[in-house]
Amino acid sequence: MSGPLSDTRMPRLNSYHLPPGLWPGPESPHARLEGPEARHLLGVLRAKPGDTLRLFDGQGRFGLFTLASAIGKDRADLLAQSLDSEPRPTSGLVLALGWNKSSRRDWVLEKAVELDALGLLFWAAARSQGEPPPVVKDSWREKCVQAAKQCGSAWLPELGIVAGGVEGLVRVAAEPGIGYDGGYAGLYMLDEAAPLDSVDALPDPLRLATGKNLVVIGPEGGLERREAERLARAGFQALSLGPRPLRWETAALYCLGLAHFAARTREHSRT
Amino acid sequence: MSGPLSDTRMPRLNSYHLPPGLWPGPESPHARLEGPEARHLLGVLRAKPGDTLRLFDGQGRFGLFTLASAIGKDRADLLAQSLDSEPRPTSGLVLALGWNKSSRRDWVLEKAVELDALGLLFWAAARSQGEPPPVVKDSWREKCVQAAKQCGSAWLPELGIVAGGVEGLVRVAAEPGIGYDGGYAGLYMLDEAAPLDSVDALPDPLRLATGKNLVVIGPEGGLERREAERLARAGFQALSLGPRPLRWETAALYCLGLAHFAARTREHSRT
Repeated sequence: MSGPLSDTRMPRLNSYHLPPGLWPGPESPHARLEGPEARHLLGVLRAKPGDTLRLFDGQGRFGLFTLASAIGKDRADLLAQSLDSEPRPTSGLVLALGWNKSSRRDWVLEKAVELDALGLLFWAAARSQGEPPPVVKDSWREKCVQAAKQCGSAWLPELGIVAGGVEGLVRVAAEPGIGYDGGYAGLYMLDEAAPLDSVDALPDPLRLATGKNLVVIGPEGGLERREAERLARAGFQALSLGPRPLRWETAALYCLGLAHFAARTREHSRT
Repeated sequence: MSGPLSDTRMPRLNSYHLPPGLWPGPESPHARLEGPEARHLLGVLRAKPGDTLRLFDGQGRFGLFTLASAIGKDRADLLAQSLDSEPRPTSGLVLALGWNKSSRRDWVLEKAVELDALGLLFWAAARSQGEPPPVVKDSWREKCVQAAKQCGSAWLPELGIVAGGVEGLVRVAAEPGIGYDGGYAGLYMLDEAAPLDSVDALPDPLRLATGKNLVVIGPEGGLERREAERLARAGFQALSLGPRPLRWETAALYCLGLAHFAARTREHSRT
């Protein structure tokens, strides 16, 4: 590893995650990387004092750092070269995903980072297999961190567990959400029973990409009627992704892709 | 298993794949299911004579059949109750995917069926890890069949291997393609170097969903410059999916999702 401009072998600098609480403040350029991230830097990449790396905190902050010194194999003292930040995104999707005992959960976590999801909530639906754990697992956050290292995103989606089935979702819909001013711009649910010939059931990508929008996706097997009816009474608009049932993770990525595309389209219309 | 309307436990009829060559002709309503499909029907579902099942051939034909008799555990004689067909789709995407030694290939095959890809071609790019096999593997077709059983699609995407790197892609672009009249309506490539501020680099979903369109996606790491330049000279338009690199399978599903969405939007505008 060497300076970012001098190394043509490496298309991007290696990124490391430094939790927000350990980020250097304005008073000092020093930071310390510990644990697995430090072991990767020192043991796998065999970084040497003077090498440059990129750090990010998953809350918008990132920067270039110089390795000042290594203490053993799992502690690296770093010096900030340049610090930058991206503002918290104000538009995009929070997906509320019906719990599945699915090997594809990791995959959805990864794609949520790649496609700029604002958040992922897991909830126990009537047709869920099993129950989500009471709190978010560290392994889920770790999956998001790994995805952000790969794609270079400065923000990690917020992860959460919603207790209480659809009643819990109705409560969430009324909450502004951590770190966000104001409530949801739109409330949606994917519902196989939504009328296919109604334009109201067709997702509007620009609306999905305007403000913070909550999209409920049932587990494999979909929402039960009474769940969809309860959500409809609470103001959730039923959307359909077409005549054939899509799998859980396909539906999730489909929605994220539409919102991502619409956000880019809007950027273009501004320039 | 019983008649399709009498069984409330089963939201959809179980589907079985009967290859096109074994499909009953107009002269006779008889069909025979053999091998793993018959073993599943007889051994796992324990179907009894008189039970109804759905067959499809992956080439647009499907129908309801009655189990007439079981011969041992792996042969089922069937009688057609009703036969139907869907015309070959004339619009959508053929993805030419740079080869990766990826556990995510199966996943892309599955999503291609769910999202109505017309075809998937694999090619060896300069940055590919390894080489694709000389011919399409049976296990890939089987993955598509399983996906079609799950989502109810009557058509399977065409699968192919393109030899010769970008030169092979240029030849493919000039071919009408098996079973299709006329050539490609549009030729595209995803290219990280496409100018982000150019509206020409933004995918146009309606164009992707109009006629048969070829979209080249590089392997992880993307296209090399000389590959992108060769494709550009052959008329491929460079598209970008945004400032951050998306993973191979994310890019593939993103494109399929946009085309799927645009096709539905167009249906709505017609009704």
